[in-house]
Amino acid sequence: MSLFITFEGPEGSGKTTQLQALRGYLEGQGFRVYAPREPGGTRIGDLVRNIVLNPEYTEMQPAAEILLFSAARAQLVGQEIRPRLAQGQIVLCDRYADSTLAYQGYGLGLDLQTLRVITAFATGGLQPDLTFLLDVPVEVGLARKRGQDANEWNRMERRQREYHERVRAGYREMAEADPARWCVLDATRPFDDVQAAIRAEVNRLISGLSEVR
Amino acid sequence: MSLFITFEGPEGSGKTTQLQALRGYLEGQGFRVYAPREPGGTRIGDLVRNIVLNPEYTEMQPAAEILLFSAARAQLVGQEIRPRLAQGQIVLCDRYADSTLAYQGYGLGLDLQTLRVITAFATGGLQPDLTFLLDVPVEVGLARKRGQDANEWNRMERRQREYHERVRAGYREMAEADPARWCVLDATRPFDDVQAAIRAEVNRLISGLSEVR
Repeated sequence: MSLFITFEGPEGSGKTTQLQALRGYLEGQGFRVYAPREPGGTRIGDLVRNIVLNPEYTEMQPAAEILLFSAARAQLVGQEIRPRLAQGQIVLCDRYADSTLAYQGYGLGLDLQTLRVITAFATGGLQPDLTFLLDVPVEVGLARKRGQDANEWNRMERRQREYHERVRAGYREMAEADPARWCVLDATRPFDDVQAAIRAEVNRLISGLSEVR
Repeated sequence: MSLFITFEGPEGSGKTTQLQALRGYLEGQGFRVYAPREPGGTRIGDLVRNIVLNPEYTEMQPAAEILLFSAARAQLVGQEIRPRLAQGQIVLCDRYADSTLAYQGYGLGLDLQTLRVITAFATGGLQPDLTFLLDVPVEVGLARKRGQDANEWNRMERRQREYHERVRAGYREMAEADPARWCVLDATRPFDDVQAAIRAEVNRLISGLSEVR
């Protein structure tokens, strides 16, 4: 049984910690889980990640940024995700192609149809079985992030408030358009409540897959 | 008067030296000429180039390779080529988007329509005014290249013979489909003859542009 689950949402939504808590829970049950760092996760992807996220490169063109993110994702999908799914592992991704549509499409206003062609090319058409949207109002996400060291904010995170509002609306639109894949969670709720909802959804999916067999 | 000229063709066709000879000729006449190295030409592009052309990264996924080349090109177009054309300079490129179509599309067999979307996205739709195809039979190009140190061959150049035949056929197909932009030259002819043909074509284009004014 293979399962591909992605986590989406703004910085400060708790994606990364929720993902790690789910990972622990699944590993505790004996599942083999692979949880790469996005957009790295491979040595080629890590090199690309270092270029994209370096705040020094203020001259970065929007199209170049998207193509670099997509290149790192293409490498990760072909080198790691597909082989591990083929081995029956559970793959958990902290951001995936939907982030490109949300941030560069809805957020920066680049053509969504073009971005869909590029992300489908990068992933070879591989879609998650389940995508959690950890939804928080923009001011909550930014405030949580600000609690961390503001000097560590990368170029992505410095972008302005209205941009984050467009990203949030884009995520919600994608989730509403494909409710079979997306599970929207109110991430302002206590951490343990959100984690319980995530585990319930994943357990439901796993028992569904087991019954099919 | 701005002018955007690209050079295409296989390794060993003499592209780079012909381009430099044309550059000298145009600069000698007082034109401002910009001739970046492709796929680098910017500091971001150079970092990406180092990843793509490193023969150590044998795990490189075809889709990742294309997206990295395209990212370097997007950076070059937005950061350097467009601003310089806007200033009335002549831009000479050693490879451009047509290389992606020839090598990854015709050569590796990836979907041409998808590649056209990606290259149009990377270049923002910027097309050359004139493209020289330096055409040589595959065995001639490979033999010329082999005259150089074979240890310095990069991953691109090591690819097999049949692949180079498909690339050559692809270039010729693109040139035939758009004769107004492409100028096909038999690059087995003596260097000075090929350079004379290039200069004649460029002079024809420049006088045409001057007459329009």
